[in-house]
Amino acid sequence: MQQTRLDTARIRAARRVIDPVFLDTPLYRCEALEPGLGCAVSIKLETANPVRSFKGRGTEVVASLLAERGPRAVVCASAGNLGQALAWSGRGRGLDVTVVASRFATATKLDRIRALGAGLELVDGDHELARERAAAIARYEGIRLVEDSLDLETCEGAATIGLELLGLTEHAERTERTERQAELAELADTAPPFNTAPPFNVTPPFDAILIALGGGALATGVGHVLKALAPGVEVICVQPSGAPAMTRSWHRRRVVTTDSTDTIADGVAGRRPIPAVLDDLLLVADDAVLVQEASIITGMRMLLEHAGLVVEPSAALGIAAILEDRDRFAGRHVVTIVCGSNVDGDAYRRWVDGAPVPHGT
Amino acid sequence: MQQTRLDTARIRAARRVIDPVFLDTPLYRCEALEPGLGCAVSIKLETANPVRSFKGRGTEVVASLLAERGPRAVVCASAGNLGQALAWSGRGRGLDVTVVASRFATATKLDRIRALGAGLELVDGDHELARERAAAIARYEGIRLVEDSLDLETCEGAATIGLELLGLTEHAERTERTERQAELAELADTAPPFNTAPPFNVTPPFDAILIALGGGALATGVGHVLKALAPGVEVICVQPSGAPAMTRSWHRRRVVTTDSTDTIADGVAGRRPIPAVLDDLLLVADDAVLVQEASIITGMRMLLEHAGLVVEPSAALGIAAILEDRDRFAGRHVVTIVCGSNVDGDAYRRWVDGAPVPHGT
Repeated sequence: MQQTRLDTARIRAARRVIDPVFLDTPLYRCEALEPGLGCAVSIKLETANPVRSFKGRGTEVVASLLAERGPRAVVCASAGNLGQALAWSGRGRGLDVTVVASRFATATKLDRIRALGAGLELVDGDHELARERAAAIARYEGIRLVEDSLDLETCEGAATIGLELLGLTEHAERTERTERQAELAELADTAPPFNTAPPFNVTPPFDAILIALGGGALATGVGHVLKALAPGVEVICVQPSGAPAMTRSWHRRRVVTTDSTDTIADGVAGRRPIPAVLDDLLLVADDAVLVQEASIITGMRMLLEHAGLVVEPSAALGIAAILEDRDRFAGRHVVTIVCGSNVDGDAYRRWVDGAPVPHGT
Repeated sequence: MQQTRLDTARIRAARRVIDPVFLDTPLYRCEALEPGLGCAVSIKLETANPVRSFKGRGTEVVASLLAERGPRAVVCASAGNLGQALAWSGRGRGLDVTVVASRFATATKLDRIRALGAGLELVDGDHELARERAAAIARYEGIRLVEDSLDLETCEGAATIGLELLGLTEHAERTERTERQAELAELADTAPPFNTAPPFNVTPPFDAILIALGGGALATGVGHVLKALAPGVEVICVQPSGAPAMTRSWHRRRVVTTDSTDTIADGVAGRRPIPAVLDDLLLVADDAVLVQEASIITGMRMLLEHAGLVVEPSAALGIAAILEDRDRFAGRHVVTIVCGSNVDGDAYRRWVDGAPVPHGT
């Protein structure tokens, strides 16, 4: 693999500054989903934590570095999940957090940002306007701007999910090392220390991973780890047809912007991909696909009905991708990252109380 | 503490035979619930695994012992969760599993038991009749009967939750030990090995735990660990008013049976407490309380609305107990074990789509 901006040793180091409440999240087969999808499906669940999304991993890295040696004030633009996570991570470290969001953002996400004590500024436009405003605040006030997906810490935090998917955490490695002490002794004089890459590639039990694609932190982070350590796993990014900028950019190998977005998947609704992130994505993604809104909604309903999981639209993108291309995944073992569960109750009920979800095949 | 049937060293050993997919489950503060409850609330989430309940912990212990040296066939009575878990644990070890359940049991639980390849026999009566029938099958066919809560393995499996609540797992202890090496060195010449109790009591960040009470495996298992290692934590068992047999037995200090049950909390709807389990419960529980059906439903709705968690009625008993006695918990930090999420979709929607859930206070 050509070099991305990420580094596996730094990602391993990131684990050590992230509050354990965000780490070692559940990873399990969900057989009840499988008759409806035609493939084996494992879920990596990133919603059972204080901010109900994976974003805490990255904001923990950001905030711990700032608390150590950076400015005490920080601003970010957010569709809601990054802001909530930064508010949580900053509160615990005495940072002064400001979040800029669209006034059309999911109301419960904004409520939680306020409840966590962050300053919240709403802009009368979409997420791209919020990004501009956050950058302006950072310049004007001389405080740190956290740019999701551009700032390496946000990618490194997300990338720790990749280590867990491959069982390459200190905990797992210690257990494994004990059990395989004899085998490893034959390969090397000493077992590898925890913070270095294993001397061989990993063969995980799954052969494809479906990753929600927005700004790209999750996809480039997890994709980097998989391509570096388990290159046989197909890394497939999934974006809504209504917010296709990064996916189009990936296919054309250059940044493509769009004038608007039209999707319920608020967490991934960007219009202006970041060039450096696209460069990384070109190195780690095997494919990027677009899915329809109807498939996202069916995915949310299937996760509720068959897995008992409330998820936000972005977290159903992986299931949507399977639904739209069953032949591609038939008989394979696919992991999907359930990346967030912050939904407005009323909207969620409208989405899931629609037509019946398909059972069986 | 007087001796229960349980032993902390055996509980630690149980962790080593349980598939890791059931261990080290999420434990996190859920602040969004707190304005409505008036106390700090942490959730121990036992639903993000292949059987969507905590029962896999116990059936893993049962099945691993059987696979090692016991009979290859096993039967249990179940309201659905134990049966599903035993089917899962037995399938992986080539055991022949039969589950006896009431024909009135939750349909999705029965569907999952069948899907996991277990034999399913339905009785035309309640859970107590299923217990009788399972015992008869075991006698007649000479196969192993697994009796939930009576069989120590089921309690020991559940008790591993207690170790995790106190941070007393190999993983946590190793990290802790590294960090506190110097401190520990002053207390003893060598750090304690992982499989022995620490030389001092633990002071966890919570001061009360609310545990769903049915047959008693969860309450006596977790209660044993807490009373042995963190006796300052108040252990409160919660049962529906419509299925009060064990709670009444605890208060009268002798087995009290009831003629019928009337509750939506199918997982805890027993009528005939087991004397040996009651004896243990008398040693480890500080209190046992009854809650109304309306509180259980409100608890389910609050967990959905504010925590994004789909839970079965038994898993909302803890929240129900806080709702019915806010003064008791005001300002305290309470842990509640979300013990299962196996619900029928239609019934669940009926329960949660009722009147509004209280916000704030």
